[in-house]
Amino acid sequence: MAVYTDVTEQDLAAFLGRYDLGSLSSYKGIAEGVENSNFLLRTTAGTYILTLYEKRVNRGDLPFFIGLMEHLAERGLSCPLPVHDRSGNALGELAGRPAAVFTFLDGMWTRRPSPEQCRAVGVSLARMHESARSFPIARRNGLAPADWRPLYDSCAGRADTVEPGLSAEIEAELADFEANWPADLPEGVIHADLFPDNVFFLAGELSGLIDFYFACNDLLAYDLAITLGAWCFEPDGSYNVTKGRALISGYVSVRPLAPREYEALPMLCRGASMRFLLTRLYDWLNVPDDSFVTKKDPREYLRKLRFHRGVREASAYGLDRAEVTKGSE
Amino acid sequence: MAVYTDVTEQDLAAFLGRYDLGSLSSYKGIAEGVENSNFLLRTTAGTYILTLYEKRVNRGDLPFFIGLMEHLAERGLSCPLPVHDRSGNALGELAGRPAAVFTFLDGMWTRRPSPEQCRAVGVSLARMHESARSFPIARRNGLAPADWRPLYDSCAGRADTVEPGLSAEIEAELADFEANWPADLPEGVIHADLFPDNVFFLAGELSGLIDFYFACNDLLAYDLAITLGAWCFEPDGSYNVTKGRALISGYVSVRPLAPREYEALPMLCRGASMRFLLTRLYDWLNVPDDSFVTKKDPREYLRKLRFHRGVREASAYGLDRAEVTKGSE
Repeated sequence: MAVYTDVTEQDLAAFLGRYDLGSLSSYKGIAEGVENSNFLLRTTAGTYILTLYEKRVNRGDLPFFIGLMEHLAERGLSCPLPVHDRSGNALGELAGRPAAVFTFLDGMWTRRPSPEQCRAVGVSLARMHESARSFPIARRNGLAPADWRPLYDSCAGRADTVEPGLSAEIEAELADFEANWPADLPEGVIHADLFPDNVFFLAGELSGLIDFYFACNDLLAYDLAITLGAWCFEPDGSYNVTKGRALISGYVSVRPLAPREYEALPMLCRGASMRFLLTRLYDWLNVPDDSFVTKKDPREYLRKLRFHRGVREASAYGLDRAEVTKGSE
Repeated sequence: MAVYTDVTEQDLAAFLGRYDLGSLSSYKGIAEGVENSNFLLRTTAGTYILTLYEKRVNRGDLPFFIGLMEHLAERGLSCPLPVHDRSGNALGELAGRPAAVFTFLDGMWTRRPSPEQCRAVGVSLARMHESARSFPIARRNGLAPADWRPLYDSCAGRADTVEPGLSAEIEAELADFEANWPADLPEGVIHADLFPDNVFFLAGELSGLIDFYFACNDLLAYDLAITLGAWCFEPDGSYNVTKGRALISGYVSVRPLAPREYEALPMLCRGASMRFLLTRLYDWLNVPDDSFVTKKDPREYLRKLRFHRGVREASAYGLDRAEVTKGSE
């Protein structure tokens, strides 16, 4: 949950005066997003989301994020559409922060994903990958494998306080990634954070994707691995092969995997687990307890990492090679 | 800000199935209220607020709070109106907690009150007092003068860590309240927490009052004193007599003060300062730093208390006796 910056009505009304959005009826801080401050706006023209970009977001990345949402929405992917002011700008400034207004997306995120929802997420993820092919801006992944060791080094001395032996286990994994991470797979713009709270459903259908603030250029199949890890494990830590099969089959129904993407899945899934294990470990050790951010247990991703380490063949995720590569280049 | 309890879509849809509110389009946790969890609901029928009552709220008080809002709204005071389900109940259960749905109130709370807004608040407070005369349920004030000493005793040993000499200062005040608190003033239902974030304005007009969860039976003029303290001091701690005059004159335009209420104002204002000083002091010393609640500095109310202690005549608040008692019984 997050409202880091409060806004006065006077400042907000002045900001909105540059848009054709009618007059302000109400605005309320909402518990959505952990990087930025978000408000639900009601104006005489409708309902919108106002985002104030806080310090953790690099201002230089904003044209990528906002441009990407606009690019995807124009191609029929349901996601928040940046609203332009009368001068054509989608990005302004409010309360000393970069700020943007977005269309409001109806729908609810699911706390208990079903296999059908997993399939729909796979379909949407692949559509996002396909729609973003023509997006002209690129953004480096700030949490790519090359960033994992420095991130780990910053908390290595205390890792074993979270779980005995964790340092050695991470060290061994990092060495393996450094030697064996797949380098020649198809790349493109990935969402990189497609967790259940970033996907809305309405009346049984996927109604939209939100929160593109980790989006970047990286391996497309790595995004599938992140999404698989976020959707297809049960609260008890077990992998749900029915959901995994549904998610992957949804994905490949839009974008078949190349055979080498399929074969790389266990390694990519281990890497995706490492990425979330490390950021959660860092936050666990470094975020003050009086922060507004609820800290997530890094051990959830340690368990997922161990599961993926035990996977010898990508077929363990639920689909065999022929099913996922049919129609691939 | 507060969302203590998350709700699944399935549970919420089942809960809403008992109401004639159409089907759910979205729900988002909002940063409003510190005692309860609040969600902004959008359904095919409109926009609503869903409140889940958390542990700090006594379930036995809910008929008073919800009944009061209904009573006031029916008499034309703009406040959230509890929505009844098809069986006529305004109170249900969701996620293991008592829960209610309210109409959504347009408007924004003011971060920088103007004298005109202070006047409007005074008018609304008096209207609330008048409208609640016929409300049949009573609720004891859990933070009345008799409750201050036990509250203080629970943190007395550490008060001087907040400000040297604070213990002795509070002790002297409590002894004075115990000897001299006015006992024979008009009583009724008071809001008891009418701070700027509980009053909405829209297009220059007061559009409604919210958050009746401290409402109780007590001296009506004590509610005026609480409201004066919440609206009429500047960020630098100084009393703004223009705002004070506006607020009181708004109040007495609806409900003139009895002469003895007017004379008691300095004592009532000191008491109101003590009540917020003590609850803030308690939270300052006892609420864990990792709580989601932003702790407010008790010294703000210590400064207000000292100001009111220096007031010899109620006319210092901005109106003379003849102006505020004209037409009183």
